[in-house]
Amino acid sequence: MKTYLDCLPCFMNQALRAGRIATNDEKKIKKLLDEVGISIQKIPMGHTPPETGEIIYRKISEITGNKDPYKNIKAKNISHALNLYPSLKKKVEKSDDRLLTAIRIAIAGNIIDLGVNKEFDLVNDVEKILHQKFAICDYNSFIQELNKAKEILYIGDNSGEAVFDKILIEELGKPVTFVVREIPIINDITRKEAEQIGIDKIAKVISSGTTAPGTIINLCNDDFIRKFENADMIISKGQGNYEGLSGIDRSIFFLLKVKCPVIARNVGVKENDIVLKGKNIKQGL
Amino acid sequence: MKTYLDCLPCFMNQALRAGRIATNDEKKIKKLLDEVGISIQKIPMGHTPPETGEIIYRKISEITGNKDPYKNIKAKNISHALNLYPSLKKKVEKSDDRLLTAIRIAIAGNIIDLGVNKEFDLVNDVEKILHQKFAICDYNSFIQELNKAKEILYIGDNSGEAVFDKILIEELGKPVTFVVREIPIINDITRKEAEQIGIDKIAKVISSGTTAPGTIINLCNDDFIRKFENADMIISKGQGNYEGLSGIDRSIFFLLKVKCPVIARNVGVKENDIVLKGKNIKQGL
Repeated sequence: MKTYLDCLPCFMNQALRAGRIATNDEKKIKKLLDEVGISIQKIPMGHTPPETGEIIYRKISEITGNKDPYKNIKAKNISHALNLYPSLKKKVEKSDDRLLTAIRIAIAGNIIDLGVNKEFDLVNDVEKILHQKFAICDYNSFIQELNKAKEILYIGDNSGEAVFDKILIEELGKPVTFVVREIPIINDITRKEAEQIGIDKIAKVISSGTTAPGTIINLCNDDFIRKFENADMIISKGQGNYEGLSGIDRSIFFLLKVKCPVIARNVGVKENDIVLKGKNIKQGL
Repeated sequence: MKTYLDCLPCFMNQALRAGRIATNDEKKIKKLLDEVGISIQKIPMGHTPPETGEIIYRKISEITGNKDPYKNIKAKNISHALNLYPSLKKKVEKSDDRLLTAIRIAIAGNIIDLGVNKEFDLVNDVEKILHQKFAICDYNSFIQELNKAKEILYIGDNSGEAVFDKILIEELGKPVTFVVREIPIINDITRKEAEQIGIDKIAKVISSGTTAPGTIINLCNDDFIRKFENADMIISKGQGNYEGLSGIDRSIFFLLKVKCPVIARNVGVKENDIVLKGKNIKQGL
């Protein structure tokens, strides 16, 4: 997905929000906003938004000296999500369609996104999403592809969200490789958080090598690119991965809650919609 | 009121919103955002936000070639407000406290603010504000000052809003000088709209000379400054005028609906609160 005009003020908003989380020093935050302001003219509108996000969040680390500003927030979100895990597992077990319920839960986890300017209430929002109608639901293709696949490449998004992903991974019934970011960026998941959550016990955890808040193929390492090209089935979580991968010519299932008007327009749905969207899926094969 | 860090991304948001109203040419809007981005570093944080607003909205006119982008929207708002005028007059006439009701109506008109990113529903929002509790209500001082004053200087804000101001001016029972902006800026009122509304029939209309979306004394003309310094009583409408005048050392009554978190913090109230705030008012004289 390319960068839209609406993304430009949003980069400034994100810089202010993240800058405040990284430091209390107003002078450093001012410097950050000055530098992001100057960068606006240099942003290639043909690039995806996470490519610019990578530059901005790098600036935040450089200027504030804080390499993982969301560390404490991530820990809190993971702990909160882990507390919900047993009751969510029960919901799956009691459900008529375990897989679909697990997909809903994985999408519900996508509300834990600190790159967007939305507050969330984990317990209530999850409950709402469990009963929300899908705006796009390519569930039949998803089942078909899942049945055919020997292995699944599952691209993670936010840290707390991965607790919810774990529930879906446990329902897939196939070997899964779970993909994390190379370094801390916003509250995105890295190997460290994946291990805290215990994803390494149920899946192989690899880094895509990306330092952006989304999967940008030309920032990824060779090992990931090879796995991405050869994967039987790819599940991509969240907005950042959608922005990075929606323009790539291969089959992918996107699972996300739409939290920004630009992505809503691009996907063809409304803000706050939930989506299970299959891209380049060969029907009926 | 000084510029806060939160104002910096807001300038970018405003530029995008106003740029889109001024033109459909995405390249021009991109150029505008680039230039506003570069300007961020040059904004003196000690200046008031409307001083920067003046620079940004001037850029919008220069880059898009549109000197009055809000012309049609202003006309629509004025026409809508004029339709409500008879029923609002009746509300005042039936009211136990005509002056206070007229003050509420004047504040209700302040929702027609196109500089902030809030949608409004004129009929419903006005009705709500007519019954909303004031967060600050220096009504007793207001009456005291009004009784003493021979003349009143009334500083207008948005165009449609001035229809509601007319109702308050008609209740003040004293000669009023109504102050407009020198040139079109956002949907702020100029002499042209004041005359369309018929304010010139019930008050003397003067321009402050300001080209900013707020009253910035050092951008005002000598005639206004003299009147401002010598006025018995000053009524200032809206956020832009509050931002420009809250730091000036003289008595002023601010009437506004608070529509931005920064102003809320500065006034000491919450967003969406309504305020009749007397500044530097000598009590009991």
